[in-house]
Amino acid sequence: MQDPTGYPPTARTVPTRSAKRASYDRELVHAILDETYLCHLGFVRDGAPVVLPTLYGRVGERLYVHGSTGSRPLRMAGARQPDDTDPGLAVCLTVTHVDGLVLARSAFHHSINYRSVVVHGVAHQVTDPQERRVALDAIVDHVVPGRSHDSRPGNERELAATAVLSLDLHEVSAKVRTGGPGDEPEDVALPHWSGVVPVERGYGPPIPADDLDPAVAVPDYLTVL
Amino acid sequence: MQDPTGYPPTARTVPTRSAKRASYDRELVHAILDETYLCHLGFVRDGAPVVLPTLYGRVGERLYVHGSTGSRPLRMAGARQPDDTDPGLAVCLTVTHVDGLVLARSAFHHSINYRSVVVHGVAHQVTDPQERRVALDAIVDHVVPGRSHDSRPGNERELAATAVLSLDLHEVSAKVRTGGPGDEPEDVALPHWSGVVPVERGYGPPIPADDLDPAVAVPDYLTVL
Repeated sequence: MQDPTGYPPTARTVPTRSAKRASYDRELVHAILDETYLCHLGFVRDGAPVVLPTLYGRVGERLYVHGSTGSRPLRMAGARQPDDTDPGLAVCLTVTHVDGLVLARSAFHHSINYRSVVVHGVAHQVTDPQERRVALDAIVDHVVPGRSHDSRPGNERELAATAVLSLDLHEVSAKVRTGGPGDEPEDVALPHWSGVVPVERGYGPPIPADDLDPAVAVPDYLTVL
Repeated sequence: MQDPTGYPPTARTVPTRSAKRASYDRELVHAILDETYLCHLGFVRDGAPVVLPTLYGRVGERLYVHGSTGSRPLRMAGARQPDDTDPGLAVCLTVTHVDGLVLARSAFHHSINYRSVVVHGVAHQVTDPQERRVALDAIVDHVVPGRSHDSRPGNERELAATAVLSLDLHEVSAKVRTGGPGDEPEDVALPHWSGVVPVERGYGPPIPADDLDPAVAVPDYLTVL
């Protein structure tokens, strides 16, 4: 049975260092995943790693990414074996927030406050039309909550040009660093400033498209971003 | 001879789609790399991809990443073959800035304004003591320009615990999207707001360490971040 509170640690998700920063808590993982919309997706092509930035969405314990049917990872994930089985594509999907720059008196103890999630697994192409629509809405709403209901849904031609991959949250870990610098006691009296510079993210005022009818107001869901 | 203005495109760096967004211009690549300090480093372990966030620095046409001598990619990159050759570690290092959320009238044309760089290559452990110091200073100064001269340099014990990898900028591409949404002409009259929501990054006021002598002022290089 699935552990309701945490992901089971595996050889790949137990870090070789800073193990105290690792977590397998579902709520923490979901919170980190839901706070941004950009991930870095890794896969192997001709034996070499490839890492591409892409958007993603989450529905429960499943992540979705999408792209052109012509893009490499999406084509690779959809390739059938000669016996028509679907091996999927081994991926690693990583999400990182930087929360602060940690300046210690010693160069060695400089660090970053961050929250990251690393998901290992096999991505599969989603072919069910209903799940594809749910996935595409989830990706749009992951970037701007509420937006999928205030835009024209994809038509047949657009949906045919779009591939969707799913990746289940099974083998997952989070890693978090918070707090101030961890200087050596003998360094505390050194004359260097030490502390944390918070990293802030935000949004500027929305810029209407050149051809937007001025009567169309900025929607509420943008003002609360 | 090295092209002074651009990186030669290769099969791996010519995208299968949105080719018009791709660039091999050195100045553009350097500018994207120098504007942030966090990359996502991909490598292959037991045949599967791994993507980890890490800091990096740049010195000319060479990138550096660092970590504990016990961390996986750093150990893997330093592993010698039986004949004592150094095969290095095949990596893909990716850097992404998100500049704006692009909201179109159609769900399909939603997008992100971004600037990214993807570097393919083989990372090698840096063993030369002088290059290691240059690399570690470059990483510190990449996060906070000017900081390496205002902190205690690593001592022998700290340097012995730190591994440094180098990755040369040979097989490199940038990808950039700018501008407003690209709606279909027949969608322009739809009642949905469309345009760009700028994504802004910044820093909050520096927070001194609990044990910082109040006489130590915030240095100038932090006020201009």
